[in-house]
Amino acid sequence: MSIEKTPYEPSRRYLLEIAYDGTNYSGWQIQPHCIAVQQILQEILTGLYNRQPIHLIGSSRTDAGVHAQGFAASFLTPVRPEIPPEKILRASNRLLPPDIKLRSVREVPLEFHARYDALGKAYTYVLNLGAPSPFTDRYAWRPIHRMDVEKIRAAVAMLTGTHDYSSFVVERNMIDDAVRTIYRIDVQTFGAFCCVTFVGNGFLYKMIRCLMGTLEAAGSGKFSPEDVRRILEARDRTKAPETAPPNGLFLMKVFYSEAERETFQLETLPFC
Amino acid sequence: MSIEKTPYEPSRRYLLEIAYDGTNYSGWQIQPHCIAVQQILQEILTGLYNRQPIHLIGSSRTDAGVHAQGFAASFLTPVRPEIPPEKILRASNRLLPPDIKLRSVREVPLEFHARYDALGKAYTYVLNLGAPSPFTDRYAWRPIHRMDVEKIRAAVAMLTGTHDYSSFVVERNMIDDAVRTIYRIDVQTFGAFCCVTFVGNGFLYKMIRCLMGTLEAAGSGKFSPEDVRRILEARDRTKAPETAPPNGLFLMKVFYSEAERETFQLETLPFC
Repeated sequence: MSIEKTPYEPSRRYLLEIAYDGTNYSGWQIQPHCIAVQQILQEILTGLYNRQPIHLIGSSRTDAGVHAQGFAASFLTPVRPEIPPEKILRASNRLLPPDIKLRSVREVPLEFHARYDALGKAYTYVLNLGAPSPFTDRYAWRPIHRMDVEKIRAAVAMLTGTHDYSSFVVERNMIDDAVRTIYRIDVQTFGAFCCVTFVGNGFLYKMIRCLMGTLEAAGSGKFSPEDVRRILEARDRTKAPETAPPNGLFLMKVFYSEAERETFQLETLPFC
Repeated sequence: MSIEKTPYEPSRRYLLEIAYDGTNYSGWQIQPHCIAVQQILQEILTGLYNRQPIHLIGSSRTDAGVHAQGFAASFLTPVRPEIPPEKILRASNRLLPPDIKLRSVREVPLEFHARYDALGKAYTYVLNLGAPSPFTDRYAWRPIHRMDVEKIRAAVAMLTGTHDYSSFVVERNMIDDAVRTIYRIDVQTFGAFCCVTFVGNGFLYKMIRCLMGTLEAAGSGKFSPEDVRRILEARDRTKAPETAPPNGLFLMKVFYSEAERETFQLETLPFC
């Protein structure tokens, strides 16, 4: 516990589920010269605890411009004041800016770790196959080429399983191991929107946006499903197309139980 | 035609269907010391026609903060350059800010008038009966009180028909006649959202937001359907509750044919 560097004996650990519109942020994690979601939320929690510093441990990072429906982060509370989870939820939501809101607050065991205890994550990437829209352009990518949803469906089948995803990672040299498991990729349509939901044990830096760049090329007919398989097997970033823009991507859920991970289902558009 | 004050002989009239997120605008109509949607769009069209001034005639006004999915406005084109409707659509959407987009552009008869030829309008007001959300709080009102959708349904039945709506208008003294016809009020739910869609021959200043203030009180159980009928019959603004906030309101469609008006149906949330 000493690594937390809190000057007070910690009493409880709270787990937060956080939704945010990432448009105006540099991502989750605090960085110099940027405004990060972590910073905004830590400052508000620190205020609630009478300026005793609160440090949030996030389940992962998210890139600049990426959104979240269910980002997970935990913190150790100071001994006092004792603030029940429901009150943290209500007070924070009153104080937070409109583009960050808490979905839930619950107590977890002291030894819980938001990152190391995660059994996987679900991300949804939203494509708008229709007209430009003032309401959804910040939440969906409108590819220039005409998309065929059935071609996207055929291509995603090549990408599930346990693989070395080196073809779909930016800054490959920064990581030891690019092997990950994608349990499922669901392709669903809601009106003019096509949502691609990835459920995996973990994802590499910009991996989903790299995968979406390839799926866009598959959807436009540029690549066959067999081409997509070859790109995966090449383990070479230069073989895959451009990275898709961040604004279509939503971290939907961080799983701390296998049952949650197996039953996860996208019910509606992630920005509704 | 002389009232248009265009210095060039007009050649065609184009009708635009416009969608906008009203959050950052003072409404549709140009006013001093504010930024209006009309101003932004006129400037872009004027640019497309080599700085020959374009004047848009809107179907109505919308208030500050109110959104539109299908605002209608028309203009007389200069004789040259001749720009086909599809090109106006594409070029404007490239130049417009992200919160204003054209939905369609089509040629109409020269004598067409966007305001006087309108046979009615549909507005949808969105209530969020669920949790705060960074994605939808700018597009929906979250009432403080618990809402019963069936109570809202019972109350709207009192408000349709041809009536003097003086109880639901701001600045009643500015208008001669508060008699309007509301053909239908549909109450639909989409997940945690309740959408109330008003189809009428015309609406008074802030009328829908006044009606929604009353429907919120009905939904919370404060007013019975009979109370709502009495408020309507009183023809007195002071008998009705507060005006609902602008951000839940969408102008969905302006009707130029009776068939369109009769068959209009909200298919999904107005911000999707």
